[in-house]
Amino acid sequence: MNETDLIMDRCEQLATISSQPDRLERVHLSPEHKAVNALVAEWMSEAGLSTWQDPAGNQCGRLEGREPGLPALLIGSHIDTVPDAGRYDGMLGVLLAIAVAGRIHGSHNALPFALEVVAFSDEEGTRFGMALLGSRALSGSWNEEWWSLADKDGITLAEAFQDFGLDPARLPGAYRRPENYVGYLETHIEQGPILEDHDRRLAVVTSIAGARRYAITVTGKAGHAGGTPYDRRRDALVGASELVVEVERISKQRGVIGTVGRLQAFPGGVNVIPGVVELSLDLRAEFDNDRDDALAELWAVVDEICTRRGLAFETRELYRADAVPCDARLMRAVDAGIRSTGDEKPMAFWSRAGHDGMAVVNLTPIAMLFLRCRGGVSHHPDEHVKKSDVTAALDAFEAAVLAIAKEKTAR
Amino acid sequence: MNETDLIMDRCEQLATISSQPDRLERVHLSPEHKAVNALVAEWMSEAGLSTWQDPAGNQCGRLEGREPGLPALLIGSHIDTVPDAGRYDGMLGVLLAIAVAGRIHGSHNALPFALEVVAFSDEEGTRFGMALLGSRALSGSWNEEWWSLADKDGITLAEAFQDFGLDPARLPGAYRRPENYVGYLETHIEQGPILEDHDRRLAVVTSIAGARRYAITVTGKAGHAGGTPYDRRRDALVGASELVVEVERISKQRGVIGTVGRLQAFPGGVNVIPGVVELSLDLRAEFDNDRDDALAELWAVVDEICTRRGLAFETRELYRADAVPCDARLMRAVDAGIRSTGDEKPMAFWSRAGHDGMAVVNLTPIAMLFLRCRGGVSHHPDEHVKKSDVTAALDAFEAAVLAIAKEKTAR
Repeated sequence: MNETDLIMDRCEQLATISSQPDRLERVHLSPEHKAVNALVAEWMSEAGLSTWQDPAGNQCGRLEGREPGLPALLIGSHIDTVPDAGRYDGMLGVLLAIAVAGRIHGSHNALPFALEVVAFSDEEGTRFGMALLGSRALSGSWNEEWWSLADKDGITLAEAFQDFGLDPARLPGAYRRPENYVGYLETHIEQGPILEDHDRRLAVVTSIAGARRYAITVTGKAGHAGGTPYDRRRDALVGASELVVEVERISKQRGVIGTVGRLQAFPGGVNVIPGVVELSLDLRAEFDNDRDDALAELWAVVDEICTRRGLAFETRELYRADAVPCDARLMRAVDAGIRSTGDEKPMAFWSRAGHDGMAVVNLTPIAMLFLRCRGGVSHHPDEHVKKSDVTAALDAFEAAVLAIAKEKTAR
Repeated sequence: MNETDLIMDRCEQLATISSQPDRLERVHLSPEHKAVNALVAEWMSEAGLSTWQDPAGNQCGRLEGREPGLPALLIGSHIDTVPDAGRYDGMLGVLLAIAVAGRIHGSHNALPFALEVVAFSDEEGTRFGMALLGSRALSGSWNEEWWSLADKDGITLAEAFQDFGLDPARLPGAYRRPENYVGYLETHIEQGPILEDHDRRLAVVTSIAGARRYAITVTGKAGHAGGTPYDRRRDALVGASELVVEVERISKQRGVIGTVGRLQAFPGGVNVIPGVVELSLDLRAEFDNDRDDALAELWAVVDEICTRRGLAFETRELYRADAVPCDARLMRAVDAGIRSTGDEKPMAFWSRAGHDGMAVVNLTPIAMLFLRCRGGVSHHPDEHVKKSDVTAALDAFEAAVLAIAKEKTAR
C-alpha cells in the first residue's frame, strides 16, 4: 500500500471507532478516545517515534533530531469529532504528521530540531461545550474553573479525567515550555469552498478567525396552546426564532459569520407554549472588532425582541478566542512547501474555523496548511478529500518541514 | 374536612405522584398512572361506587340508579398530565365527578339513570404524541395503527399496554355501547382568561375547537459553522425559525390559534450548521374552515421559505379533530346548574383547548362546564383555582346532573 492509500485507509479505520452505531461521534475522554489513542500510538511507533499519552490525554510521539533533546517542531492536529462527523477533520492532519515524521525518519536526514507529533484530545468541544481542551493543556493556557464543566449526563471534566485513568492534579505535567519548541505546523481540511472554487489543492493559512460562543436562554412562560390568547402569551420559542433570523441578517450585513447550532424548546409538549428555549451562538470574523460590533448589535436587537414579547434572556460566554495571526517565517516555509508541489503561486487566506493553533500560539509560533475538501463540506458525513490532494499535502507538509530545517541551519 | 377541602387535598396528593422529582409529569401507562388509578379507585369506593379498570387503563366507578343496569350518565375527566404540569387540568374534573356521585349516593335520591365516573387514562397525548387515547378507546373510535406508535424511548403503545398489565387484544372490551349512555358531562378548568376577565366563576361550553397537529421535519445540510459561507448554507434552523414566526403571524391575522410547542435542531453542535430540525405544530379554531385555510396558507409560505433556502420539509399529521358542538339539552342542564349557584346569566363560549368530549361524542352527546383558573394559566405549575370556585363548580355540577334527571323523569 502506498503512503496515501495507507493514510486514507487509516482515516477509514478511525471512522469506525465511534460511540454511535450509525454515525461518527468520538468525544473527549470517551472509551473511543482511549481506543484511537492506542491505535495512533501504534502508528507513531511504526513511523519510528517514541510515544506517550500526556497528562491531558493528548497522544504524543517524538523523533529526535540531529542530537537528542533538541527543541521540537510540533506537528499534528486533533483526534476528536463533532456529532455525526466526517472522517478527515482533525484525523487527516494527525495522519499526515505521522507520515511526514515517518518519511524524515526513513530518510535518515536528521533535522536541526526534534519532531513532536501530537494528536490533540479535544479540539471540537463537543462533550463539555469548551473547545481546545487538549491544546490548551499542552500550551499551559488551562483554567482551573473548567474542571467543573459537565457533559450532558452531568459528568464533570474532573470526573471524566478520572474515568479515563488521568489524574486532574497531574494536568500541569502536560504544560510544555516555550524554549523546547521551534514552532507548530498543522495540516487541516479547509472546511470551506475557496480552494475548490479556485481549482487549487492547497493554501497557506494567514490567520485563524477570532470566535465567541454563547449559551443563550430565553425565558417566557409555558401555557396551554389552546387557552392562551396571543396578547397573553410569552412564547419563548417565537422570540428565540426571531433571534435566529436576526443572527443571520446581522451577520450577512456585517460580513461576519454567525451560527445558531443548538436550539431546543422546553417543556416540549405539542400543545404547550414553550416557556424556555436554550440555544447556542457561534460568532466569528477575520477581525475581532467586526465580530464584537456585530455582537453588540445583536444583543440590542434581542433586548428589543424580549422587551416586546415579555421575555427574559440570559447569555453565558462559553468560549472566546481572539484572531490569531500565523507566523511570517513559518508561513514562508508552508508557501515553499506548496510551491514544491508545482503550485507556483499558492493561495493564502484566513481560516474561518478555529483550530488548535489558537491555543498552541501561547506556547510557540504557529502556521497551517489547508487542503481542499469537496464542496467545502465538513462536520458532516459527506466530508470528502481527493486522494491526489492528500498526496500533495503530504509532499508540501514534508517540504515545509525541510524548509524550516534549512532556514534554521542557515541562521 | 369539608368537601372542597377534601378535593383540594386530593389534588395535592395526585400532584405528588410524578415521574419527576421536581415537577409533575404523569403519562399514559406509566407506574404513576397505575398508582393514581389505585388511589382514584379507593376514592370512588369511598363515594359508594363499584369500581374497575377498563381494558384501556381508564379507571371507572359506577353508582346504580333507581334500578340496576339503567343507562348511565358518564361524568369525569382525565388523570394524565403534560410535562411540568399544573395540578388541576383533568384531575379536578375527576375529583368533582367523584364528589357529585358521592353526594347523590349520600342523598339516597336514586336517579332515573346510573352514574358512571371515569378517570381517562390519556387525554394529553404526552407519551405517544396521540391525544385522547383513553376516551377514544371508551368511545370505540380506536385505530389499530396506533399500536405501533412509540414513545421517546422507542416503546410502542402495544408494549406499554403489556408492561402495564393490559392486553392489547382485549382493548375492544373497553368500547361502550351508545344505548347504555344518556350523555357525558365534564367539568374542567377554562385554561384561558375569559372567565377571569369577566369576573365570573363558571361557564357553559358551547363547542370544543377543532385541532390539527403535525410533526414537521425541515432538512437542510449540516456543515462547519465557520467554513461555510452564507450563499452555500442550507441551514435548517434559520428556515424553521422563519416558519415559527410565520405560524404566529398567519394565526393572528386569521384569528386562529397556532403554536409550535416542540422544536429541536440536529445534530446540535455549537459549531455545526443545523442539518435537520424537528418541530410540532398545533393549530385550532372555532370553525374547521378557518383552521384549514390558515394551514393551507402556512404550507404555501413554508414551501416558499424552503425553496428560497434550499431546504426540504415533510409534514406528518399526528392528530386531527373537527370542532365538536355540545348538546343543546345537556347545555341547558349545565346552564341551570350554574344559575343555581347565583349566577343569573351564565357565560357561554367555545373551548380553545381539546377535551375528552371530542372522542366521547362518538358514543353519546356531551356537554361541559368551565371553571375559572388564575390568569388563564394551565399546562404550567402555576395553574391555580380558587377554593370558592371549586365549591361553586361542585354545586353547579350536581345541580346539572339533577336537572338532567328531572328532565328525563318529566319526559
